Amino acid sequence: MTGPRLVSILRQGSHLIASVHTALDDTQMTAFQHDLVDRIGRDRSRGVVIDVAALDVLDSFATRTLRTIAEVARLRGAVTVVVGIQPDVAFAMVSLGMDTGALHTALDLEEGLALLDRIAGGRRPAVGARGGPA
Amino acid sequence: MTGPRLVSILRQGSHLIASVHTALDDTQMTAFQHDLVDRIGRDRSRGVVIDVAALDVLDSFATRTLRTIAEVARLRGAVTVVVGIQPDVAFAMVSLGMDTGALHTALDLEEGLALLDRIAGGRRPAVGARGGPA
Repeated sequence: MTGPRLVSILRQGSHLIASVHTALDDTQMTAFQHDLVDRIGRDRSRGVVIDVAALDVLDSFATRTLRTIAEVARLRGAVTVVVGIQPDVAFAMVSLGMDTGALHTALDLEEGLALLDRIAGGRRPAVGARGGPA
Repeated sequence: MTGPRLVSILRQGSHLIASVHTALDDTQMTAFQHDLVDRIGRDRSRGVVIDVAALDVLDSFATRTLRTIAEVARLRGAVTVVVGIQPDVAFAMVSLGMDTGALHTALDLEEGLALLDRIAGGRRPAVGARGGPA
């Protein structure tokens, strides 16, 4: 594929950050899905953040692909968090009744990485205690 | 059963490592399930890693058996982690809508043992513990 990159996948520690820069058609979405799952194995990632802030629409195919990525990633040992869903996109997804299933979501990259550290990081002893704000 | 071993079950500390070396038919899968649960009791294991990296397909019976093992093991006090699910296998499982339920998964044996130490071990302090915010 020539032209500007449609998606970038960067590694940060034990996490991957995948940014979708522009709307992807179904073929590109499928390619993205395979690239990402491939990288999880190569980089031994425990967490994946998918940033969709650049998208002003998430159709049902894209939503299903995100869910598939999350489930496949889980089977490969990584937790996926989708971040940057714009308000209008979120309203559209909800009113169209799209099933986002058990997809983890966060406001933006920073919150996504923080969420990953909590659920996938494994740095603190797993006490299972979700303590309230200290 | 004669011929090469289809499955090996090794003990490592308080964990068991079960490697499936080849595709099992339903009878063999059931026998494996019983052997493994038997070993959990005999070895007083707290964790079980099931390595399926050698398999290039996991059908619905095998998936259900893995889930059954995990649930039975849990009732016997052990946590089960399935490791080594190949990317193509994972995609197939997800697109066929197989319910992997609450199965713990990890990339490979090493990650699986690390995960067990986090959720079942509680013996060693997390190596190189980067403490969370104090």
